[in-house]
Amino acid sequence: MGLLDPDRLFPIDESSRGLARALYKTVEALPIVSPHGHTDPRWFAENAAFPDPAQLFVTPDHYVFRMLHSQGIPLEAMGVPRVDGGWTETDPRKIWRIFAENFHLLRGTPSRMWLDHAFSEVFGLTERLSAATADASYDHIADCLIRPEFRPRALFERFNIEVIATTESALDDLRWHRMIRESGWSGRVVTAYRPDAVVDPEFAGFAENVAALGELTGEDTATWNGYLAAHRGRRAYFKEFGATSTDHGHATARTEDLPQAEAAALFAKALAGACTAEEADAFRGQMLTEMARMSLDDGLVLQIHPGSYRNHSQPVLEKFGRDKGYDIPTRTDYVRALRPLLNAVGSDPRLSVIVFTLDESVYARELAPLAGVYPALKLGPAWWFFDSPEGMRRFRETTTETAGFCNTVGFNDDTRAFCSIPARHDVARRVDCAYLSTLVRTGRLDEGEAFEVAHDLAYRFAKQAYRL
Amino acid sequence: MGLLDPDRLFPIDESSRGLARALYKTVEALPIVSPHGHTDPRWFAENAAFPDPAQLFVTPDHYVFRMLHSQGIPLEAMGVPRVDGGWTETDPRKIWRIFAENFHLLRGTPSRMWLDHAFSEVFGLTERLSAATADASYDHIADCLIRPEFRPRALFERFNIEVIATTESALDDLRWHRMIRESGWSGRVVTAYRPDAVVDPEFAGFAENVAALGELTGEDTATWNGYLAAHRGRRAYFKEFGATSTDHGHATARTEDLPQAEAAALFAKALAGACTAEEADAFRGQMLTEMARMSLDDGLVLQIHPGSYRNHSQPVLEKFGRDKGYDIPTRTDYVRALRPLLNAVGSDPRLSVIVFTLDESVYARELAPLAGVYPALKLGPAWWFFDSPEGMRRFRETTTETAGFCNTVGFNDDTRAFCSIPARHDVARRVDCAYLSTLVRTGRLDEGEAFEVAHDLAYRFAKQAYRL
Amino acid sequence: MGLLDPDRLFPIDESSRGLARALYKTVEALPIVSPHGHTDPRWFAENAAFPDPAQLFVTPDHYVFRMLHSQGIPLEAMGVPRVDGGWTETDPRKIWRIFAENFHLLRGTPSRMWLDHAFSEVFGLTERLSAATADASYDHIADCLIRPEFRPRALFERFNIEVIATTESALDDLRWHRMIRESGWSGRVVTAYRPDAVVDPEFAGFAENVAALGELTGEDTATWNGYLAAHRGRRAYFKEFGATSTDHGHATARTEDLPQAEAAALFAKALAGACTAEEADAFRGQMLTEMARMSLDDGLVLQIHPGSYRNHSQPVLEKFGRDKGYDIPTRTDYVRALRPLLNAVGSDPRLSVIVFTLDESVYARELAPLAGVYPALKLGPAWWFFDSPEGMRRFRETTTETAGFCNTVGFNDDTRAFCSIPARHDVARRVDCAYLSTLVRTGRLDEGEAFEVAHDLAYRFAKQAYRL
Repeated sequence: MGLLDPDRLFPIDESSRGLARALYKTVEALPIVSPHGHTDPRWFAENAAFPDPAQLFVTPDHYVFRMLHSQGIPLEAMGVPRVDGGWTETDPRKIWRIFAENFHLLRGTPSRMWLDHAFSEVFGLTERLSAATADASYDHIADCLIRPEFRPRALFERFNIEVIATTESALDDLRWHRMIRESGWSGRVVTAYRPDAVVDPEFAGFAENVAALGELTGEDTATWNGYLAAHRGRRAYFKEFGATSTDHGHATARTEDLPQAEAAALFAKALAGACTAEEADAFRGQMLTEMARMSLDDGLVLQIHPGSYRNHSQPVLEKFGRDKGYDIPTRTDYVRALRPLLNAVGSDPRLSVIVFTLDESVYARELAPLAGVYPALKLGPAWWFFDSPEGMRRFRETTTETAGFCNTVGFNDDTRAFCSIPARHDVARRVDCAYLSTLVRTGRLDEGEAFEVAHDLAYRFAKQAYRL
Repeated sequence: MGLLDPDRLFPIDESSRGLARALYKTVEALPIVSPHGHTDPRWFAENAAFPDPAQLFVTPDHYVFRMLHSQGIPLEAMGVPRVDGGWTETDPRKIWRIFAENFHLLRGTPSRMWLDHAFSEVFGLTERLSAATADASYDHIADCLIRPEFRPRALFERFNIEVIATTESALDDLRWHRMIRESGWSGRVVTAYRPDAVVDPEFAGFAENVAALGELTGEDTATWNGYLAAHRGRRAYFKEFGATSTDHGHATARTEDLPQAEAAALFAKALAGACTAEEADAFRGQMLTEMARMSLDDGLVLQIHPGSYRNHSQPVLEKFGRDKGYDIPTRTDYVRALRPLLNAVGSDPRLSVIVFTLDESVYARELAPLAGVYPALKLGPAWWFFDSPEGMRRFRETTTETAGFCNTVGFNDDTRAFCSIPARHDVARRVDCAYLSTLVRTGRLDEGEAFEVAHDLAYRFAKQAYRL
Repeated sequence: MGLLDPDRLFPIDESSRGLARALYKTVEALPIVSPHGHTDPRWFAENAAFPDPAQLFVTPDHYVFRMLHSQGIPLEAMGVPRVDGGWTETDPRKIWRIFAENFHLLRGTPSRMWLDHAFSEVFGLTERLSAATADASYDHIADCLIRPEFRPRALFERFNIEVIATTESALDDLRWHRMIRESGWSGRVVTAYRPDAVVDPEFAGFAENVAALGELTGEDTATWNGYLAAHRGRRAYFKEFGATSTDHGHATARTEDLPQAEAAALFAKALAGACTAEEADAFRGQMLTEMARMSLDDGLVLQIHPGSYRNHSQPVLEKFGRDKGYDIPTRTDYVRALRPLLNAVGSDPRLSVIVFTLDESVYARELAPLAGVYPALKLGPAWWFFDSPEGMRRFRETTTETAGFCNTVGFNDDTRAFCSIPARHDVARRVDCAYLSTLVRTGRLDEGEAFEVAHDLAYRFAKQAYRL
């Protein structure tokens, strides 16, 4: 039957499966709204061919190389670049062979589903990847990549992407977004405002970054008010390039709502590099509330996704740098952490704050109860390690009863693996249809309602929540 | 098929569903034992008509108005009274229309199931509530409410309630309970002893409350021994009005077992308003152990349900007061917290301590292991945000294997929404029958045993655990 | 149909059940690999008859007596010995009758499944245990126990145990293991190195134990280097008796990687009995990293299973001693706790560190992400209170998507209840086959792959991970 079971992820009993299939048929072909992700705008600006199968599927995908690495395969062997410029594998075919020989390690993981989907639907492969099929599949994909219909813009259109958001640093000049806009291409690629470098006192070069922000905006960022004005200016600049949201990935969900004089003093200390760890954390928390207040004025949606212990392995960080699959979720408190922000602005229905989590034990206990009452708060989807069939199912089962569907925001793929985007949205749509089918078959929802909600979850909620 | 699927909440496959249905048939009509709740005894004392549909279903039900509020509908629009007496909607029909127009927000929630059950089974409505049916349903319910068979006592009897417990402050004069008793009505409405106002040093007016307790009991509550004696006296008074339990909703599960001299000193400090937050917490913890010791003498069941961060929104608290849907669960530790109490009295099988939780991550990890060994400890049912089909299922799946059925106490509705009582018990009975059916169909329980356990869970355990 | 449903624990729908059954058929009869447990090597050394049914099934099994105790039955009545030598029941038939009368308390628990399996498969009983069957079943089992085919070695062979690991203190002389070896019996019983008594400064007699370790090994354990050398020597001695692993059950998962001079100073303080609680904890953490470094040299697998609050009831501890069912799981952090060890040696694929947990909320959040990237780290199976059908299912559902199957280590029974060993492995095999069947039926795994993985989980992974 090829690589993909047409009924995958649907309930097993025939009656529920039939309904899930019927629901899915109505959302399967809906355009993809991708409001949060990390694709590279340069792809769409330059529209150059992707270099080779390994560069497309292995070397940049930390889901993939972390699993192989966990079984003892060195990161170098998968072409992951070293900080010191030392040797790593550069022959893409060799990297691909290692990947193929170890593809069975991905059994039972979402990566396996995403890869099979891309192999099958994007490249037309029909055999499971293995040592035996390594070279043939490599050749086939490589042949495809040089063809125009596999260029980024062609794939974007083929994937039926209505809009995709990338994420850029506050200091980014958005040149690729400008190039896309000026190219006359009709694809809608928008940016999102990610100010880590200028709101986190512990970020490398914080003071310099803040100075650079001042230069970019013409504000005196040596003062608290100038600094806030610079953010406002920069947000407006990002809005020119389609941004509808800001994006914040702090280590904790801590927020603060200090008196402005205290906040200003903390900022001065941060600029001077004199913050304690506690003060740096407080400043980051204060900036979330400041960002929320700016959102009340400019309408940008505030995304908070805390709880990742970044770069857990010091040896790997030193040898390979950041983002090498060693970001590990930690326990996160939301009830006390979000209270200052929510008390300040959470009752205002004009504001939209979207919270993601890597700690699913808080879905039912903290996040759904908070989102089920505060007008400004919404729940982002099952995210990162939970962006999986079981994770999505648990998300619905633990949030819907308290927060309803209406306080969730549909799906986003949060990925830099371009070919996995249709696969990920497809998985989400299937899992949601399966869940809705189960609700109907257990008398908790009418069939007619299920069709409405399926559309909400696949398309409408994301557009509405992110104001796209 | 009307508002209710007759097979709702049963397993989907025919074989399990058939058995679940058979199990349910044997418990469906059992009398309701409601050992913990917040109905108003005045209803049963005066037996006056409920005023209007909005007052019955919307304005007092925080499950309902919090969800509408989360989507930006002001609490005022649903008639929630303001602390300052300022404007709120008073036209019940307007409130009802808002409710009806937004009824779809409750899709997938237990409130939706409870409301549909009440609309269908209590009021005979047949169409889903919506903007289109708002006025007709309003008129129909309003017409019902003026008829004698919709008075509280008539509904109590129609609901087949064998016994219901209300909850009263230690300082309550129990006048409505007296009136019920003196009325000669045969309905069994009992009270429960809730001493927050006189055991929590941070409760508004604590010292005055303790003095009032002294006056009510003729004890010198300025002394530790007199204070304890006053509790004993007041518990005896509550027992005269049928109380079989006490009820404690502290922020944490902390208990203490201090030497009596230390406890007395802490009490003196509390009376003087000189406790630190830590000392106030210790005193509350000490009083749980004192209450447990009193229970050994007078047989009252001790209910502990910690872990709610009350009134999370300061603006809402200031404008609308307490209990407006802003109570949010927090992470709760039980292992260390309950140890002082359990070490003091937990080995005594004459004592019955029932623990509820809002933190379901502790079911399998902490509460089931504790209840599965301490003779005094029992697990209360899935509670509050977990009083839902998925919550109840997870409760059974995560507690039964370690604590068995025998260390659980059946269901309670914990509600002030009178018309939801049959609905809630019905949901619990269905979910339990579904769970039992699954155990049988997967070879983990005999069919004959399942029928016994179904009866235990629906009726016998609640009567036994609460000594009703 | 007797005590056991032949399709127990399989999915209910016919299509999935059929596949689960087919998968199970291929692993049902595989030899048992039991790499972690607490059976008594003396059984296999002396091969004496088990004394009576109560000594076999009730008195030593804390799963069983804790549940009866939780319902008010005194531990004495089940024959649990008292520290003061005071009265406990010694008539095995009386103990058995209490057990039989209360067997229904175990409904829905794994103990019930294990017992039914042993009653049926080992002893050929056909009726559910109850008061009515108490005496007949007692007599039947007692009659069996005196027959040679119910001696430990005969059962070992009948259970098809390929290899079983026991656990011995670092100070144990391994006399029973020596006796087994010298007996010429072909059964493979290996030891495991459990050094609590000599690595935990808070262990009773720590300094004396360390001195004894020095005598056993001929090293000067008064010095840090001598102490480490003694461990190395003792580990080598354990390896002579088949040990392939070490076993560490600290209260937390804390590890440390202090400079050697600091570690030596801490050791000196520990020997002097001068450690604070914090220092003792740090020392235990340091010793985990030291053990990991030794493992790099000698190849022993490092098992860490933290998170049990031991002997929670002080009264029970004083009256009955340790391990009386009062060990309660607590919340455990792994992300920060394991970092020192993982940073020191976690990238080395020659090392194998297996982590168990009693806090299942960390499976998806912490342990699977860690095991899914660190080459040295593997996940032990659902353990202790989670060694149950629901616990095992949740383990697979929450770990597979992030850690894959390849970073798990198969099943182990961790038991001293000898007759439950086949039952426990059978439950694990069934649950895994059910899970695999569901993956296939929902399009997440090919059928052919499922057969391979079923074999991995039932047999190959345990042998490989434990190097057996």
